[in-house]
Amino acid sequence: MPRSSIITISRQYGSGGRTIGRLLAEKLGTDFYDKELVTLASEKSGYTEGMFERATERRVTNSLLYSIAMVGNSPAVMYDVPVNEKLFAVQSDVIRKVAQNGGCVIVGRCADYILREDPRCFNVFIYASIEDRIKRAVEEYGVEAKGAKDKVIKTDKQRASYYNFYTDGKWGSTANYDLCVSTSACGVSGAVDVIIAALEAHTGTDLRI
Amino acid sequence: MPRSSIITISRQYGSGGRTIGRLLAEKLGTDFYDKELVTLASEKSGYTEGMFERATERRVTNSLLYSIAMVGNSPAVMYDVPVNEKLFAVQSDVIRKVAQNGGCVIVGRCADYILREDPRCFNVFIYASIEDRIKRAVEEYGVEAKGAKDKVIKTDKQRASYYNFYTDGKWGSTANYDLCVSTSACGVSGAVDVIIAALEAHTGTDLRI
Repeated sequence: MPRSSIITISRQYGSGGRTIGRLLAEKLGTDFYDKELVTLASEKSGYTEGMFERATERRVTNSLLYSIAMVGNSPAVMYDVPVNEKLFAVQSDVIRKVAQNGGCVIVGRCADYILREDPRCFNVFIYASIEDRIKRAVEEYGVEAKGAKDKVIKTDKQRASYYNFYTDGKWGSTANYDLCVSTSACGVSGAVDVIIAALEAHTGTDLRI
Repeated sequence: MPRSSIITISRQYGSGGRTIGRLLAEKLGTDFYDKELVTLASEKSGYTEGMFERATERRVTNSLLYSIAMVGNSPAVMYDVPVNEKLFAVQSDVIRKVAQNGGCVIVGRCADYILREDPRCFNVFIYASIEDRIKRAVEEYGVEAKGAKDKVIKTDKQRASYYNFYTDGKWGSTANYDLCVSTSACGVSGAVDVIIAALEAHTGTDLRI
């Protein structure tokens, strides 16, 4: 049944990808997972939700060079990588588990890679111009205008670093995705319609409810 | 009028992008330009069509290093770059001219970059898995199976090299395009439907005729 499709959404910070995921799940009548995955992973493992969130943010500084530079100064760094790997493994288990339950929309967390063997997956990348991302960060996410550009750039660097470390792919490269949509061109609700059109083409079925 | 949209299609070799362009123009009832541009550029300039075609293919070997290495051995190389630049300029003029005539679909030739100031433009990138591109090259373009993989890879290197030389962008990077569709995921006629859905979202109009 096509509605059992699993749509993974990777997105640039400020592109509106999370909202698109939520609207898409509503339109398709399927489950939506974003921060819910963190809660589930926390419950399963006993690690706090904050640890999962920081693991994604910290990956950018966890290069080998950084680790070498810090050894001796901060022994914690030596334990940092294994803990992050454990957090990633727990989160991967949770993603595989929710995918077993049926069709859903999953935002971020390398779900496209974790579920790469699952033929039900349809992988989407959402992006936008830097100007539009800064605007959305300020107007919708409450980021201060002064540091908004840095926040947008840094967050995407972190996402890229996290993705590139844990997967075989390059974050944001078309090769990882079935469809890439710019919300600068199509808007947020427009992007939802485009994804549905692409899913219909992919599955050969009318998916609108 | 939304039907005055200019859709530029960049595409990986073997992805079916040219067919998509043709079908899209038919569905939208607009003009289609691919090799027609070469004919027009040839008529305008007096250069042969073959020269325009070879200019695209040769760019990959026109690195500075190659030019330096060849100076003395082949004086023609010294004149090669200016001729290519001239061919590019003629072709750019032709693209701007056909765009002035109204809505159309243009395949390849850096049209997205040449028309970057034109607000009517909607830029699409079509891609597919390497396996599907090889298969299409053999079955539809008549490429010999033995060298098909090399042909696919080399042609895309040429396209990337040509694009990256003449534009400010990186060929195949989402940042240049409003939409990127995989024909491995959506099929050729499916990709046409996805582009139309994206154009509808972009222009806020029903475009089907």
